[in-house]
Amino acid sequence: MTTPLKIAVTPGEPAGIGPDLIIKLAQESWQAQLVVFADGEVLKDRAEMLGLPLTLLPYDADNLQIQPAGSLYIKQIDKQANVVPGELDSENGLYVVETLRQACQANMDGDFAAVVTGPVHKGIINKAGVSFSGHTEFFAYQSNTIDVVMLLATQGLNVALATTHIPLEYVSRAITKERLHKVIHIINTDLKLKFGIKSPHIYVCGLNPHAGEDGHIGTEEIHTIIPALDALREEGLNITGPLPADTIFQPKYLDDADVVLAMYHDQGLPVLKYKGFGASVNITLGLPFIRTSVDHGTALDLAGTGNVDPGSFRKALEKAIELAQHTQ
Amino acid sequence: MTTPLKIAVTPGEPAGIGPDLIIKLAQESWQAQLVVFADGEVLKDRAEMLGLPLTLLPYDADNLQIQPAGSLYIKQIDKQANVVPGELDSENGLYVVETLRQACQANMDGDFAAVVTGPVHKGIINKAGVSFSGHTEFFAYQSNTIDVVMLLATQGLNVALATTHIPLEYVSRAITKERLHKVIHIINTDLKLKFGIKSPHIYVCGLNPHAGEDGHIGTEEIHTIIPALDALREEGLNITGPLPADTIFQPKYLDDADVVLAMYHDQGLPVLKYKGFGASVNITLGLPFIRTSVDHGTALDLAGTGNVDPGSFRKALEKAIELAQHTQ
Repeated sequence: MTTPLKIAVTPGEPAGIGPDLIIKLAQESWQAQLVVFADGEVLKDRAEMLGLPLTLLPYDADNLQIQPAGSLYIKQIDKQANVVPGELDSENGLYVVETLRQACQANMDGDFAAVVTGPVHKGIINKAGVSFSGHTEFFAYQSNTIDVVMLLATQGLNVALATTHIPLEYVSRAITKERLHKVIHIINTDLKLKFGIKSPHIYVCGLNPHAGEDGHIGTEEIHTIIPALDALREEGLNITGPLPADTIFQPKYLDDADVVLAMYHDQGLPVLKYKGFGASVNITLGLPFIRTSVDHGTALDLAGTGNVDPGSFRKALEKAIELAQHTQ
Repeated sequence: MTTPLKIAVTPGEPAGIGPDLIIKLAQESWQAQLVVFADGEVLKDRAEMLGLPLTLLPYDADNLQIQPAGSLYIKQIDKQANVVPGELDSENGLYVVETLRQACQANMDGDFAAVVTGPVHKGIINKAGVSFSGHTEFFAYQSNTIDVVMLLATQGLNVALATTHIPLEYVSRAITKERLHKVIHIINTDLKLKFGIKSPHIYVCGLNPHAGEDGHIGTEEIHTIIPALDALREEGLNITGPLPADTIFQPKYLDDADVVLAMYHDQGLPVLKYKGFGASVNITLGLPFIRTSVDHGTALDLAGTGNVDPGSFRKALEKAIELAQHTQ
């Protein structure tokens, strides 16, 4: 018998749909111990509002059990203020950050196999006086990781990003040989280590339309991308590209690609999300632990209504469990 | 009985797959008179190589007949040099341009309902001493049209582009209020006129990731795009946006959108081509006639082999006929 995996779960913003989603998913049994880092009262209140049964089981590091249907293990972290679904309250900003900090630390300590995060609201955390630009950056900082890579996954397609949330205007100068070297090494290492792929085949998009068309539409491919990829091939990495972004997402390439590296956010994610249809997973590569996340926001207006689709949170949990099995 | 439509067809580069594709499509009957602007000998030779029957009927402006299966009407334009499939020859560069010039003129004169273009090879035309940056620009120049808009269409999705084949680095400064005003007016006019849509609903992408996230990831939305769209709404246009490019391509928006306007090439075309799966059509809006085109290149290595998929050329023909019916 294999030991059940322990997965840390942070529901994120308590006034958003994060609590609703994890409560919905807790109605079925999971082949893992799901430990929610949150205030139990928030979950109990939300479950009652949704009319769903929920038993909270106190988390005990020495008692490793799979999560039975209708229940969740809880690592209690006290909220600072009452929670009203749909209403942001900066008094709970520090509470949200504390759930992330403890979940991160527990993973750093090796007590957990992965962390799965629900949606947070950056604005309200910053309003609470904590400089916070996102989960990814927070976990990187907390774990002393300098470089991380964002990867979105859906059935049959993984898309990694060479740059993420920066203005389009700055993308060209952000694509350097050094960045491509680092990003592709992180992808290669984590696809081996966390995804269990022996020799990851990495497909790389050009930066410009038609991948620059031999320098007729931009020269970054010639001066930066092609030399960077050639150097990585010399090191033995399995890389194809740069290819035009409007031809790379075809079955003849995708059937062969373990991951597609897009140069920037809107080059890679529209097709990923179109294909994923509301059920893609955000995975942070480069961290010393496995972290997956929903790919959507807090949807404040839907909190407490029951009218939410747990598709992405489900995929995030499933992916965390799948990846954790490779590293067990 | 309605009069059959007359469609001008240019096979493009004679050493590429253009002739193969139109010969394949000519094996079936079309509810239009397909008039190929080309050298008949090129078509006869290629048909023989492919082992397909082909009867060439001389085009006569006074004899309007639908195209019977196994035949094509031909407007003879003499090639300059022998054609070997797969082998570019700059001596035929002027020939290719002449097919386009005559097809354009015939449409300008009102003799035809539309022009459908196969793939050309820009490099070899330029080597022939003709400055040529693409069909779209050529037709615009020939017809004294200052501004045109590229639209790609596939089943259930039309994507128009605010900028096309320019380096990514220059996209931000190319997005001006004036350009958006012009581009969206062209789209609105042609969707009414050529597509027969009464009040076209135009969805517009932001420029930056998450459409700038209220200025946190770039300010072009605040300073340029939102004011431009507001001004167009004042004029009565039916516009939604700017929306993030990674959420706009969802059924809840697409079901309602007559067209999605992407700010640049790789923001809109990867998802269009992924969805279209090798069968999308390129349509030039803003010209004084209907022009559709294949969405692929000359595929020199496949010319004469029979191993070609006429999917996109078929859609281009079908779309030209469909649009021409709206303007009849």
